[in-house]
Amino acid sequence: MCCGKRVAVIGAASGYGGLQILPGCCRGIPGFEVSFLGGERSSGKRWSAITPFLPLPGDPLVQSPDPEAIAAAADFAVLSLPNALAAQLVPLLERGVRVVDLSADYRYRSLETWQTVSSVEAAAVLPGQDGADLCAEAVYGLPEWEGRRMATARLVAAPGCFPTASLLGLLPLLKQGLIDTLQRRHVIDAMTGTSGKAAAPPRKTCCWRCTPEAIAPYGVVGHRHTSEIEQIAGQVAGQPIQLQFTPHLVPMVRGLLATLYARLRDPGLTAEDCRTVLSSAYPDSPCVQVLPVGTYPSTKWVRQTNRALLSVQADPRNGQLIVDGARSTTW
Amino acid sequence: MCCGKRVAVIGAASGYGGLQILPGCCRGIPGFEVSFLGGERSSGKRWSAITPFLPLPGDPLVQSPDPEAIAAAADFAVLSLPNALAAQLVPLLERGVRVVDLSADYRYRSLETWQTVSSVEAAAVLPGQDGADLCAEAVYGLPEWEGRRMATARLVAAPGCFPTASLLGLLPLLKQGLIDTLQRRHVIDAMTGTSGKAAAPPRKTCCWRCTPEAIAPYGVVGHRHTSEIEQIAGQVAGQPIQLQFTPHLVPMVRGLLATLYARLRDPGLTAEDCRTVLSSAYPDSPCVQVLPVGTYPSTKWVRQTNRALLSVQADPRNGQLIVDGARSTTW
Amino acid sequence: MCCGKRVAVIGAASGYGGLQILPGCCRGIPGFEVSFLGGERSSGKRWSAITPFLPLPGDPLVQSPDPEAIAAAADFAVLSLPNALAAQLVPLLERGVRVVDLSADYRYRSLETWQTVSSVEAAAVLPGQDGADLCAEAVYGLPEWEGRRMATARLVAAPGCFPTASLLGLLPLLKQGLIDTLQRRHVIDAMTGTSGKAAAPPRKTCCWRCTPEAIAPYGVVGHRHTSEIEQIAGQVAGQPIQLQFTPHLVPMVRGLLATLYARLRDPGLTAEDCRTVLSSAYPDSPCVQVLPVGTYPSTKWVRQTNRALLSVQADPRNGQLIVDGARSTTW
Amino acid sequence: MCCGKRVAVIGAASGYGGLQILPGCCRGIPGFEVSFLGGERSSGKRWSAITPFLPLPGDPLVQSPDPEAIAAAADFAVLSLPNALAAQLVPLLERGVRVVDLSADYRYRSLETWQTVSSVEAAAVLPGQDGADLCAEAVYGLPEWEGRRMATARLVAAPGCFPTASLLGLLPLLKQGLIDTLQRRHVIDAMTGTSGKAAAPPRKTCCWRCTPEAIAPYGVVGHRHTSEIEQIAGQVAGQPIQLQFTPHLVPMVRGLLATLYARLRDPGLTAEDCRTVLSSAYPDSPCVQVLPVGTYPSTKWVRQTNRALLSVQADPRNGQLIVDGARSTTW
Repeated sequence: MCCGKRVAVIGAASGYGGLQILPGCCRGIPGFEVSFLGGERSSGKRWSAITPFLPLPGDPLVQSPDPEAIAAAADFAVLSLPNALAAQLVPLLERGVRVVDLSADYRYRSLETWQTVSSVEAAAVLPGQDGADLCAEAVYGLPEWEGRRMATARLVAAPGCFPTASLLGLLPLLKQGLIDTLQRRHVIDAMTGTSGKAAAPPRKTCCWRCTPEAIAPYGVVGHRHTSEIEQIAGQVAGQPIQLQFTPHLVPMVRGLLATLYARLRDPGLTAEDCRTVLSSAYPDSPCVQVLPVGTYPSTKWVRQTNRALLSVQADPRNGQLIVDGARSTTW
Repeated sequence: MCCGKRVAVIGAASGYGGLQILPGCCRGIPGFEVSFLGGERSSGKRWSAITPFLPLPGDPLVQSPDPEAIAAAADFAVLSLPNALAAQLVPLLERGVRVVDLSADYRYRSLETWQTVSSVEAAAVLPGQDGADLCAEAVYGLPEWEGRRMATARLVAAPGCFPTASLLGLLPLLKQGLIDTLQRRHVIDAMTGTSGKAAAPPRKTCCWRCTPEAIAPYGVVGHRHTSEIEQIAGQVAGQPIQLQFTPHLVPMVRGLLATLYARLRDPGLTAEDCRTVLSSAYPDSPCVQVLPVGTYPSTKWVRQTNRALLSVQADPRNGQLIVDGARSTTW
Repeated sequence: MCCGKRVAVIGAASGYGGLQILPGCCRGIPGFEVSFLGGERSSGKRWSAITPFLPLPGDPLVQSPDPEAIAAAADFAVLSLPNALAAQLVPLLERGVRVVDLSADYRYRSLETWQTVSSVEAAAVLPGQDGADLCAEAVYGLPEWEGRRMATARLVAAPGCFPTASLLGLLPLLKQGLIDTLQRRHVIDAMTGTSGKAAAPPRKTCCWRCTPEAIAPYGVVGHRHTSEIEQIAGQVAGQPIQLQFTPHLVPMVRGLLATLYARLRDPGLTAEDCRTVLSSAYPDSPCVQVLPVGTYPSTKWVRQTNRALLSVQADPRNGQLIVDGARSTTW
Repeated sequence: MCCGKRVAVIGAASGYGGLQILPGCCRGIPGFEVSFLGGERSSGKRWSAITPFLPLPGDPLVQSPDPEAIAAAADFAVLSLPNALAAQLVPLLERGVRVVDLSADYRYRSLETWQTVSSVEAAAVLPGQDGADLCAEAVYGLPEWEGRRMATARLVAAPGCFPTASLLGLLPLLKQGLIDTLQRRHVIDAMTGTSGKAAAPPRKTCCWRCTPEAIAPYGVVGHRHTSEIEQIAGQVAGQPIQLQFTPHLVPMVRGLLATLYARLRDPGLTAEDCRTVLSSAYPDSPCVQVLPVGTYPSTKWVRQTNRALLSVQADPRNGQLIVDGARSTTW
């Protein structure tokens, strides 16, 4: 995404997407400028009327997300909308606006997978050949792995929080063949703060009011992120990968930690060996940092940043590999 | 522990042990009565002078923990002392006082294992034949599994928090042969609130002041509780069990959740089958509750109680078993 | 409330009221027995089907809250219903059932005050002479001050969380004439955990997901509890009392702390003098504890109990009085 | 502080001071450059060896804080040292290095006041005429009020967290004569997260492990910040000001909220009037934002920034003024 500079943010004033992305954007990613603020319900209001506590330079006006108006004002559009609303992006693509979609709608290469994973919401996604084509075209927005394709992509699907934290540690080890893929039962045990969860807390567990002081698993077996991680891991490994992914809700707002358990193909490899492989995978990635062996990531150190901290450890008894990845949920 | 009724609590006024156990004890486990309050530093003071906010009936005097005085006043002694101080218990045993030791000193059958696991502290434990004899004699204090032996034991070693939450779900499945023990890489991914941690927070991560808003792993590979869990699991399975145990510190005070990943010997078994096995293991255990399949335990529901909540789930794709156990850290 | 023994709990399965009160009740306040469990939406279900994690002895059936059925089964009814639904209590009173109402509906002596304080909800409360009569009849349920009237009352209005924590410290000092009531600007600065707040978090501040890591005031000037506190304080002082009450939402679930600032009529009085007055007011109140001067209450020590901790301090420079009261929000 | 550009940070690697200030400084306050990193214990180590999770550009070496070396390398020195160590700053001043002292040592105009407030620590501060001269010379580092003097000051004493949050709202109202100063009992009720507290948590309340889930007052009557606030408020008001300041520890890491209660000289003034006065006081202060009347500050919105949010409300019944100020504790 090299030439254009004007960015539209749609869904700016609702929920986490807008509140978190905008101040960062406006204060400046060099070379980019927020030129359009779109919101259905807040249309016609000044930004300060919606969020008096979080001023933006120039106090911009929120506008109705009309495709024509967006195309006139912006080269890129960031869609911060609920899942299954992203069909709204077709008119933008047709008008030459390049789109970054924060929802889960185009994270899967195949429309069928998405429809299986998320039957309710998927009904609303663009069906038929057009939908399938968009799924196939969309680039999975993990810059450290798809940076080159993202640079020219028309449609980028931003990955989920858990997949990002899980894949940054897993992919280099898979790619270099360090992981025993015959054992198809890798485990990812993950924890997220409340800002990484959808609008409602896990059913049958509690209401939001209780989250400050309890931990609980949710979505055990079959959570949507399982297949998202498996898809990308399988692409990099060149073979199907099966994972056991279990998320937990922990009592904090921002932060996410994924602990990966896998088996080393060569049990003689040490944690230092694995660390070298991880580090070598990210020589030019300022946002990914691999910690020294024996130092483990705390979400504290990445909170409200776009950095990721990775650590790797190996059990000399049995070649078990433990990879930890910490990220912020929103920043 | 049927006949005696008078209980001495030693280390009552220092740290979690005393503060948590005493009010419960004093308010009454029917048939028991706290008859002696021992504390080195607080000796000679009234309980109310130490903890004005937590009154005890009669406002007892804290006394110097002299074995003779304890033996005169009590049939049982609960030792709430730091690790490696439990050698103090020998004079009590010699005087016929039955001891419940809350430290980690006698959780291992063999003195050598303890010395390997905890080289620094173990130096202080009673060495030689006497120490080895005591290790062999001590009953592991998991009432649901060792209740009968505990009833007549001279020395009971209270288990660690993590092992309790892990073993209650694991042991019945191992005993009934549901778990594929050939795959010797079972994973236990666990989280604890701050009251489950030792006096100091994990080094290299942070100070206590930061715990409210971050999660981080610690003791990855080789944490002391790994071998404690392996020892008991191996006894019940009748063969050596190897586990990957990773603890995480999460931002809350009380509560502990252990998520076990293992492989079903028969992948055709369902979550309901496993739930039936778990439930059948605890017909007379009021403190262990197995949740319906699809309901997962939150630490919220066991906080400041001595209950444990268990849930089991199975992945129909591959026979992977996920068992969750929630407990309070102190109660 | 001396003779009857059978208690009906209505609204048992919805929200905090039911979940918190029932386990306590069922495990036993000596002499009382829960004989009826009423709930509109859960009617016909077993308790365990609603809250599998919180078992009750006998796993009772939730029934439709029919007044006739309640009257047949119970001597007392505890209504854990939203505000403005308490008109449902009239049929119970008519049938001789004595009612404890947990809502805010009958906390005011006069229907007019309630209608002013809470215009929206008040429309639904029993209007006209009947409503006014009930307001006048209802006994304010602060056992330490209204215990005698409560013992024979037909209708008890349980006080709000903030008023309880504020009044226990304030009332004895007012009654003994220690407070300079000419200065009609006493300040109560209070903090509550999330379980003390109504269903929705303070608008314009945040959503529930953010509560874990932030503090903010809400309802500044004119919060409903202001007039509730002023009413009772005025009754005890024998003259109108005006207070500045400001609540804050703090990042925890259970607990509430109220800090009262007032002026001593006699600036020569010491903190010890005031402490003596406070202590003397509660000689037979096991749930109220006055701390030594210099020890301040933490909500930690009363969490999930029905105890209150009070402390008092005085500034020798100017006779300013600072009284702290800590309570749990639900228990 | 206009001409120089090279900054030395002393105490960089210990505690909050270093960890929080350095990354911000290094990433750039335009025109400034960190040219010296001083630390007693970490001397000789690379920054990455101390804090692997928080990389600094160039991974600088921590050096022994030798005055000669500092003076050669830097124009300014920021001292992030414990209280009572700041006597170390004299050699720096003598060598022409301008000093910003983060400790409490030079916040008072008079050495006597500091010695009274903090008898233990004050013994270590430079005594005699030199100490008194430095106290008189030091500029109180509240940029919005002392910006001009700070620009040329040799010694700046950074204010405490509580005073900053309290004074930003109080000073404009005092200066414009809106507050009834005859009533010398203004109240400031304040709350801080754990990172705003000194190394140890409030005694008699709890240990750090418990802070996540409880609130408690500490330092009631006579807390050191009382006189710091009174001193500055008195200077601006042109007469002595007496305040009742009570801090509370709340369960979060970063954030601080101060609620001021005072009496309007003219009870006819509205909240909007007061808001206008507050806003007018900070026309060119990008870090101070006055919220619309009825919107109250949450610490969430200023977390890890150097912004302050202010709100003002007035009780039409009695001219009571309530001013809220929110800040981050460290950023």
